[in-house]
Order: sequence, then structure tokens, then C-alpha cells
Amino acid sequence: MSDVPLRTIRLLVEFDGTHFHGWQQQLNARSVQLVLRQALHKMLGHDPIQLRASSRTDAGVHAVALPVSFRTASTIPTFGFLRGLNTILPADVSIADVRVMGDGFNPRRASKGKRYRYDIWDAPCRSALRSRRSWWVKGRPLDIEAMRIGAHYLVGEHDFTSFRAVDCDSKTTRRKLNRVDVDTEDPYLVRITVDGDAFLKHMVRVIVGTLVDVGRGRTTPDGIAEILAARDRRAAGQTAPPQGLTLMQVFYD
Amino acid sequence: MSDVPLRTIRLLVEFDGTHFHGWQQQLNARSVQLVLRQALHKMLGHDPIQLRASSRTDAGVHAVALPVSFRTASTIPTFGFLRGLNTILPADVSIADVRVMGDGFNPRRASKGKRYRYDIWDAPCRSALRSRRSWWVKGRPLDIEAMRIGAHYLVGEHDFTSFRAVDCDSKTTRRKLNRVDVDTEDPYLVRITVDGDAFLKHMVRVIVGTLVDVGRGRTTPDGIAEILAARDRRAAGQTAPPQGLTLMQVFYD
Repeated sequence: MSDVPLRTIRLLVEFDGTHFHGWQQQLNARSVQLVLRQALHKMLGHDPIQLRASSRTDAGVHAVALPVSFRTASTIPTFGFLRGLNTILPADVSIADVRVMGDGFNPRRASKGKRYRYDIWDAPCRSALRSRRSWWVKGRPLDIEAMRIGAHYLVGEHDFTSFRAVDCDSKTTRRKLNRVDVDTEDPYLVRITVDGDAFLKHMVRVIVGTLVDVGRGRTTPDGIAEILAARDRRAAGQTAPPQGLTLMQVFYD
Repeated sequence: MSDVPLRTIRLLVEFDGTHFHGWQQQLNARSVQLVLRQALHKMLGHDPIQLRASSRTDAGVHAVALPVSFRTASTIPTFGFLRGLNTILPADVSIADVRVMGDGFNPRRASKGKRYRYDIWDAPCRSALRSRRSWWVKGRPLDIEAMRIGAHYLVGEHDFTSFRAVDCDSKTTRRKLNRVDVDTEDPYLVRITVDGDAFLKHMVRVIVGTLVDVGRGRTTPDGIAEILAARDRRAAGQTAPPQGLTLMQVFYD
């Protein structure tokens, strides 16, 4: 094997996170990394080398296009991986694209930013068809305009200490958001789109939980500025549940 | 019980049909009627009287708002049924609305028409997030404009013998369609919306299968007129699979 050139292959992986404990392989849990490793093992005859994703994802979160890379001496062409993996993988994981990258490509280090979407079901009753991919917020309809004003305070570069999980182990807490949009797709569906350069643990979900407090009138829109300034997780709202969150896209140069 | 007045209650039932064998109760199969009967039994202390839907639905088909009625001597208010049923019912069924109707209301007989939607995933690869609610058509992209022209021949009153299941037992075969629209929601999602006064067994699914033949160039758009004129199921295309179909709405006066 030593003088066989290794190629770096990049996949875009789509998955319904309902029955996954996120990307990262772990004991006694079904992860996207595990089922992908097993599928690649079946195609290659051995484990893929350096199977890496652009980021971890939380249990229950979905992805439209998670960049994943691995290295292999196999000469299987890209369309062979595309067809083969989509045949082998279970119904809740699919591959949208396969590309050969230059040596040294690392999907995490090369990432210039990400887009997340969060769907809120803002209706009097739960919805059988929406429940797998949205958070049902009970009670009176959300004040969308207040949420938009509150969201505006989050755009730009800030210290997001208030908006990260208590056990987040990132050494830096400054992050830059380029977009926090609150849209209504139909009378009951509120969709929050967040673009940023990088994210702290649970950051989007704490942002959503806090904006829902604004939509409910528990926090004023201006309160978002105070929560940012507090640099204290306890100042922000609840962590929104994972099933409403979808990683839409990872940006590269 | 004999002198207790019975009220007629109408529910709008939403369900994800993936794990249901349609509406109608049957032996050894999970049906929407069965789980709804069980939930109502729990609330009322006895079986609901005359539990009826506006129509049967095929196994695997979804519904946003299936009208269902039953009669009861219970004095539970409408919001009590709404909250109670949404608490008791499994995650893949929910109730969007509850109303008291006049005596003699029959959701099937009172129906003036229905709207169905069919989602086609017209992409090079299957989609993990779309597969539960769409039909993946492989191969080259569909010719949407040809499908639109073909669909136009179906609007109006016609004998739909060519577009019904071989075992359809309806005595009449003339039906009126008010709308057959072909739209593209995103680059890969083709959505067909059909409004009609009433439908034969598998009618929407045979229409979709035949329009996909047009989109693939196997049938010309004008061929739809010939297929209608043939009055022969063998003239039309395949029956599209159930998971792409959703009953959106039933119209009443």
C-alpha cells in the first residue's frame, strides 16, 4: 500500500437526524459516522482513512449537505461512490455529491462558514406531518416583528458566551454572524436562518430559544443586547430542541 | 342513553401515512380509523358511533386535513376533544380542528371536492430528507413544460376509465377536474396539485405516473388525450407510489 497514491474524497451527506445520535461515532449509539464507515468498508473492503466531517452535529439534528472527507487508495470513480453509497446506506442517509479534493483538504479547517435553518411550528396544535422537523411552541402566536428586531442585535461579531452550552469547551467565544433572518413560510411555520463563520456548542439552538422568548413577550427585543453583554448562559433562553434544526450548507472558498 | 341527544362532531385529521395502511380499519393492520377509535374510546369510555371519513385513503398516503365525523352523547366541548385527542394519539396522527355539525352530516356525502398534492423528487440521487413524502424518479430531468401541456388535457369533465385501478368498483367513471397544476418548488422538487369533484381509485396516482411518462418523453403531451379516449387502464402509465401523495383539503359548501 505504501507507494499507492491516496486520493482525498469529499462527500456531501444528507440525513434525517431523528434516529441518529449525531455525526460522531460513539459506543452503543447509532451515528452517521458509523453507518457511513460501514458502507465505505463494504465498498472498499477496508475502513476509510481519516473519515472526517466539517463539524459534529447534535443528536436529532438534520443535515441537507454535511461535508465529509476520507482518504483511500481505491480507484473507484466519484459516480461509483455516489451510486454505491446511495445503494448501501439506510433510507435516512443519502449522498448528494462526491468530489476528489486536493491533498490535505480538511472539511473542518477549510470551512469558511455555515448556514443553519431552524423551523418553529407556531400553531394551536401539534402537527403529525411537521413534528419530526420542527419545534412546536404552544400558546399565543409569536410576535414575528419583535423576533426580527431582536435577531438584528445578533448580526455581526460578538462574544457569544451567553449563547453557548454550559459544557462548551471552545477556548474562544467571539463569533461572527452574517445573517439571522426570521421568516414565516405559511401561517404557522416560522423559519429562522442563521449564517455564521463558526458556531459554539448549541449556539443556534440557544439563539432560537431566546428569540422565542422575545416572540412570546417574555424578553424585549432590546433585551438581546443585554443578554449578549451579560456573557452568562443563564441570561439567555432555553436551548431549543434538536429536531427543528437543519445544517443547510457549509461554505468554502 | 335513548333520550340523550347525540351530537355530530367533525374532526380534521392530519397524519403521516408512512406507517398506516390507510384510513379504513381492517384486521392485522394499523389504520388511522383504528388508532382514532381507540383514542376516542379512551376519552368517551365507549366506542364512537358512526366513525366515518370523507374518503378512504390508500396505504402510505398522507393527509393534511381528512374530515372525519362521529356521533356521541358526550358533553365534552370541542376544545376538550382537540386537546384530549392530540394528547392521546400517537405522534404520526394529530387533530387540527374540531367542530359540532348539524344532525345528518356525512363527511363523504357532503364533500363537494378534494385537493391532492403529489411530490416528485426529480434529482440525480435519492434524498434522505425527502424520501418519506416523495417519489424519486431516476434518470434525466423531467420536461416540466411538456407535463404542463399534457396536464391541461385532464382538466374538465372526462371519462377517467384509463386512470383508475383495475379493481376500482365505482359504477360511474366520469369525473370533473378543476385544476391539474405542475409546479417546481426547488430545482429538484416537482409538485402536482389536483382539484376535482370526486376521484376514482388510484386516479391521482395513475395521472401522476402518466404525466411522468410525458416528462420523460415516453408519451407526448397530446398522448394524454388519446389515453383518455382509450378508456382502458393499459393505455395509461404506471401507478405512482403512495408516499408522494397527500390529501390537502376536502371542500364543503
